[in-house]
Amino acid sequence: MSHPTSLDELIEALRCLPGVGPKSAQRMAYHLLQRDPRGAERLSRAVGHALATLRRCSRCNTFTEEEVCERCASPKRDPSLLCVVEMPIDLNAMEQTHAYGGLYYVLMGRLSPLDGIGPKELDFDRLLARVGDGAVKEVIIATNFTNEGEATAHYLSELFHARGLKVSRIARGIPAGGELEYSDAGTVAQALIERRDY
Amino acid sequence: MSHPTSLDELIEALRCLPGVGPKSAQRMAYHLLQRDPRGAERLSRAVGHALATLRRCSRCNTFTEEEVCERCASPKRDPSLLCVVEMPIDLNAMEQTHAYGGLYYVLMGRLSPLDGIGPKELDFDRLLARVGDGAVKEVIIATNFTNEGEATAHYLSELFHARGLKVSRIARGIPAGGELEYSDAGTVAQALIERRDY
Repeated sequence: MSHPTSLDELIEALRCLPGVGPKSAQRMAYHLLQRDPRGAERLSRAVGHALATLRRCSRCNTFTEEEVCERCASPKRDPSLLCVVEMPIDLNAMEQTHAYGGLYYVLMGRLSPLDGIGPKELDFDRLLARVGDGAVKEVIIATNFTNEGEATAHYLSELFHARGLKVSRIARGIPAGGELEYSDAGTVAQALIERRDY
Repeated sequence: MSHPTSLDELIEALRCLPGVGPKSAQRMAYHLLQRDPRGAERLSRAVGHALATLRRCSRCNTFTEEEVCERCASPKRDPSLLCVVEMPIDLNAMEQTHAYGGLYYVLMGRLSPLDGIGPKELDFDRLLARVGDGAVKEVIIATNFTNEGEATAHYLSELFHARGLKVSRIARGIPAGGELEYSDAGTVAQALIERRDY
């Protein structure tokens, strides 16, 4: 390669972003330098600032600038309901429904033995301490319906059951506005099995 | 949204990268914070360092830390050949062939009237000054074979012809290892038109 060093280094550094290969990293670097140096400066500052200020909420494990995040500290939330999600992005998806008033716990991942991510890496002991605070009556498992998300849900449900907690799982089924014709067979089958009285 | 401010700001800042929408920006932010804080630190530094050190080569217009880049300063390069490419990434593609020993000029873009990018934005006057240095005998236009790349090639060829320069265009045709069966009609037609004696 014939790049000058600081350009090489920028391209290499961009590759730490998920889903960014050598070609995209080059495109991104040229874009930043040529078309958006102000955006680049902002990016450099934002990454540094986030690293310096963000930590994990001691209650729900999500990113926050406080010891306890705003949501966990809110008296308006129902402390008897705890919803377990994989990532903060899933928490946002739940919040956007405006249909849930309880608290959350963010796993920051999912069980994935192939990637070496087990109960220890996800710090399930911390989650168990959280659900054992005396206030939590029901744990709602809202991990994704992928193989890994399902395995995580199953594993967690056994841990929670063993502690005498009420455990539920968000429903699988036909999406809102969805048509049977265009749904895969597994989804339709699940929607049939999980049918409810009407 | 319920993110703390510095996380919001990081997600917003990541969106200045080309092809990164709100969802990818969130995924990237969580990845950096959770899985790769060292990579994040490196990214922050690399962007800042690149902004501070890189400028344009006064001869070929590519990014460099010097007044004149290493390639343009090399006595091993044939100064009578000048290859015009759109972006540094295209220059790399040419160099990887090891089939070209001349010099380059990097447009840092292509004519794109819809995006407001015309001859002035690409600073064609600077390119014309470069080809008029007395040493350049042939200009090889190696812009992409997209509509915009072709339009740029056509426009440039007229400018160069008007200055009495020899102008050529890299060939279109069936890719190496390509089969006619799987090539689109336009490519096959062009390969036929640009056939050479054998």
